[in-house]
Amino acid sequence: MNSSLPITNPLSATLLISCPDRQGLVAAVTDFIARHNGNILQLDQHVDAQENVFFMRVEWDLSGFKLSREEIDAAFNQVAAPFGMTWEVHFSDQIPRMAVFVSKEAHCLYDILYRHQSGEWRVDIPVIISNHPDLGTLAEKFGIEFRVLPVNKDNKPEVEQAQLEILREKRADLVVLARYMQIVSENFVNHYPNRIINIHHSFLPAFAGAKPYHRAHGRGVKIIGASSHYVTAELDAGPIIEQDIMRVNHRDSVEDLVRKGKDVEKLVLSRAIRYHLNHQVLVYNNKTIIFG
Amino acid sequence: MNSSLPITNPLSATLLISCPDRQGLVAAVTDFIARHNGNILQLDQHVDAQENVFFMRVEWDLSGFKLSREEIDAAFNQVAAPFGMTWEVHFSDQIPRMAVFVSKEAHCLYDILYRHQSGEWRVDIPVIISNHPDLGTLAEKFGIEFRVLPVNKDNKPEVEQAQLEILREKRADLVVLARYMQIVSENFVNHYPNRIINIHHSFLPAFAGAKPYHRAHGRGVKIIGASSHYVTAELDAGPIIEQDIMRVNHRDSVEDLVRKGKDVEKLVLSRAIRYHLNHQVLVYNNKTIIFG
Amino acid sequence: MNSSLPITNPLSATLLISCPDRQGLVAAVTDFIARHNGNILQLDQHVDAQENVFFMRVEWDLSGFKLSREEIDAAFNQVAAPFGMTWEVHFSDQIPRMAVFVSKEAHCLYDILYRHQSGEWRVDIPVIISNHPDLGTLAEKFGIEFRVLPVNKDNKPEVEQAQLEILREKRADLVVLARYMQIVSENFVNHYPNRIINIHHSFLPAFAGAKPYHRAHGRGVKIIGASSHYVTAELDAGPIIEQDIMRVNHRDSVEDLVRKGKDVEKLVLSRAIRYHLNHQVLVYNNKTIIFG
Amino acid sequence: MNSSLPITNPLSATLLISCPDRQGLVAAVTDFIARHNGNILQLDQHVDAQENVFFMRVEWDLSGFKLSREEIDAAFNQVAAPFGMTWEVHFSDQIPRMAVFVSKEAHCLYDILYRHQSGEWRVDIPVIISNHPDLGTLAEKFGIEFRVLPVNKDNKPEVEQAQLEILREKRADLVVLARYMQIVSENFVNHYPNRIINIHHSFLPAFAGAKPYHRAHGRGVKIIGASSHYVTAELDAGPIIEQDIMRVNHRDSVEDLVRKGKDVEKLVLSRAIRYHLNHQVLVYNNKTIIFG
Repeated sequence: MNSSLPITNPLSATLLISCPDRQGLVAAVTDFIARHNGNILQLDQHVDAQENVFFMRVEWDLSGFKLSREEIDAAFNQVAAPFGMTWEVHFSDQIPRMAVFVSKEAHCLYDILYRHQSGEWRVDIPVIISNHPDLGTLAEKFGIEFRVLPVNKDNKPEVEQAQLEILREKRADLVVLARYMQIVSENFVNHYPNRIINIHHSFLPAFAGAKPYHRAHGRGVKIIGASSHYVTAELDAGPIIEQDIMRVNHRDSVEDLVRKGKDVEKLVLSRAIRYHLNHQVLVYNNKTIIFG
Repeated sequence: MNSSLPITNPLSATLLISCPDRQGLVAAVTDFIARHNGNILQLDQHVDAQENVFFMRVEWDLSGFKLSREEIDAAFNQVAAPFGMTWEVHFSDQIPRMAVFVSKEAHCLYDILYRHQSGEWRVDIPVIISNHPDLGTLAEKFGIEFRVLPVNKDNKPEVEQAQLEILREKRADLVVLARYMQIVSENFVNHYPNRIINIHHSFLPAFAGAKPYHRAHGRGVKIIGASSHYVTAELDAGPIIEQDIMRVNHRDSVEDLVRKGKDVEKLVLSRAIRYHLNHQVLVYNNKTIIFG
Repeated sequence: MNSSLPITNPLSATLLISCPDRQGLVAAVTDFIARHNGNILQLDQHVDAQENVFFMRVEWDLSGFKLSREEIDAAFNQVAAPFGMTWEVHFSDQIPRMAVFVSKEAHCLYDILYRHQSGEWRVDIPVIISNHPDLGTLAEKFGIEFRVLPVNKDNKPEVEQAQLEILREKRADLVVLARYMQIVSENFVNHYPNRIINIHHSFLPAFAGAKPYHRAHGRGVKIIGASSHYVTAELDAGPIIEQDIMRVNHRDSVEDLVRKGKDVEKLVLSRAIRYHLNHQVLVYNNKTIIFG
Repeated sequence: MNSSLPITNPLSATLLISCPDRQGLVAAVTDFIARHNGNILQLDQHVDAQENVFFMRVEWDLSGFKLSREEIDAAFNQVAAPFGMTWEVHFSDQIPRMAVFVSKEAHCLYDILYRHQSGEWRVDIPVIISNHPDLGTLAEKFGIEFRVLPVNKDNKPEVEQAQLEILREKRADLVVLARYMQIVSENFVNHYPNRIINIHHSFLPAFAGAKPYHRAHGRGVKIIGASSHYVTAELDAGPIIEQDIMRVNHRDSVEDLVRKGKDVEKLVLSRAIRYHLNHQVLVYNNKTIIFG
């Protein structure tokens, strides 16, 4: 199975499952697939032994599958119900719609636009939303709608309402905060639970909050990092999807950390987005399981 | 499931399977386990789409399992035969016996002895074999039998016969060449196919053969590496199990590369040994699949 | 000293020196600077003990320096001559002119254009030259002249002449082969010794030449890499400037290696370009010394 | 210069200097060395532009040097005084004396003993001090004196007095806390400022204090780390000397983090010790400058 070439791949379905652990779970799910003539492309499972919870992701070829998409729901519910499974199914020809929030920094947006335009990701980007006009020219170069909604202390609730309205109108499945630099409200988060991805420019939980590179420089760390996570009500405390790091040394000024950090930030954010788009992520207990 | 604490873990069985890919493979195996009351601790599968070959590793709790070890073979054969499966089963209370070959360099042996003695690995080391007496004192400190068999151009076949005799006598399951620095013959290799692990002090396939650090220094590389692989008849060309690297720069002399490289060599070798001891490795087409 | 913010930095001069090692070299150079009222911002030296060669890079603030640029040459020659120094001096307000050669792959060019446009690098890009028209649209988006010179077996010498003519006309100081995918002739190389930077998509010297990811996949490596080097007459054998790597596993197809490799390639190439633009690189014996 | 083979190296002197930055500093120091016939083996300098402080490390060959060790002090003081330099000089044949504090975990001690015994480091280890008897056998194997001083809430001041007495008696230059797991008092620290090296099993400043792996697991990080630092009065807040990291994933239990972390901890601690033994470390503003 090669999930990196979705376009040339066969049409496939991906099931994400979680439930209390017990015997026969994998057998029940794989029997369901085999019984209806599905060939498994990739299967991953995980048991959280501490919490006794079972997680599974299975992707199978739909070519000869005997159930139509519409029938899968009802049929699989008969398998899932006795085990108390929480589950969702995705089809490889459904193209996710991703809204990108930015502010003034271009590096993450650039990276996202490159992966979008080059066909590395199968995703639609219906809109870029910013609180500053700076990146409008870049968005225009790539032919993507750019909406400026300036934020200040007083208008935040109204702006978030307007943002939510745009997201609804654009039918966004996923919101990416690509160095948006604004704290989003709990109300906003609740509209997209585990569907807002942020990049924080530190190795969380170190240096959560403002000016992480300044604080990293002040502390004299030898390594800086970046962390991509789902946004929750608590600042920089949501489930971590991906992290990576870069060595620094005494010669590096704060400005050097900022510059070097950009290369990590964009890579970490783009990997997290990819995991999400490929339905590789399950969230449990404020942590992520990344399959595949 | 936590394979790192085998002693406190429940007694478990691990199946390793490969066969031509087709529908129903995972269902058949997991149904076999569920039917006899086994709870799956960990399951990994992989399909080599190019070669159409299916690989699987599944570990399950034997606590309530209704088949005795003796019955598993016959029972599973009925599952395996229709699919043409090649398979093997391992039980977590079988402690592998590992012979270590060394020469004069101590760093890998040290690392192995630490992991053995600290209980990090569940393994017996019945003998250390060397072509030089240098490391005898170290072996003695850890109470492990040390056998010196000097090798020269003329006596190699006789020495290998003597080595094989010792391995038989000690009932070795696995041979680790911990910087042994001698080429072993095809005949020797054939006695332990995919059961001789070597550490080569380069990032293979770069610098296969003699004096890799000298050649790396001569070429002016910015990164050095180490590679652990199963030994085959062709020098440094067997299936790679694990590799890792370390940054170097223009200040590093050949001696610095040798020193820095040691830290990578021992880590890479020890990780490869761990994968093997945990039955995480499948070999196909001169490549490895590392599960878990 | 913060070489990453050249625009806000004071005007500075950078000396690069190499000569046979002997006593008093650093003293002679730093005395020259101090005597004329220069304050050293950064100093690095290295002695190749094997070859007995001395290398030095020193950057000093020109604010209060008593010699004009024109006078530095003659004055420093009096210091350099007795030691047999080879040397060059660069001033921080001289903006290098970099020509970029591309073919069909966009990722490295994208990365270069981002760093150029964002002001991360102080460089002019007067022209992009390609053997295919594919990346013309991208070049146009960023307002950079794009010249297509199709290459085939028969017209290579003529095309190289035309390329050299463009480089002369554009007064290029540096040529970057950003996945150009064509072998350049010895004659071409001789026009820009140690001034043509290539990115090779393997961890050199492994997999020099064609299709490195296919060969890496065939060999079953656990790590892939990329190498940036100055181009010499021998293919992929020039002085390595920078290398980096990425982990892969048995799940990764050749297409996955290609995709993952792109993220390493562009980072490695951009770091190498930065070292060159900052005058941090000295070449000796087909190896590089990277200062700073 | 190859500082990794100190035994075969020429006898050398190393100067460590810090002072307010101004013109002529490098010239003054290198002129001092050249004037007395010293050949520089390695020179590093750094200017903290924010604080306007100059740092320098220079090592030179003493073979033909015209000053005796006794004369160097007085002679260099004449250079140092006008610039207000803080400085110290070390000679390569002075072998540092390092006391190691341990508790029950063996991995760091093992690693230290290997590097000591193999000759990788030029250091004497006159004593190992522990609050538990567990590692006595290991110390004995390597012929190093082992002293047990049990610590509890009530006897801490007396035990620290006894420890200090042992350190005095053994003429320790350096104290290494190799997973000692006890907080040392400010009074104790004041006896060895910037000469007590600790290893903390987290990527500081994340997870300072107790049970870092449990907290890392709870937070769901994707990378764990280790940090070596000089001990100061504030817990885990001293100047960081070295850090490194390791990837983890959702499969890793707390016990897996503990096991994997050990490999990082011992490497990070040993690198920090090496930097200290080679006089590569300067401390300023609760941060370290690592030269070489």
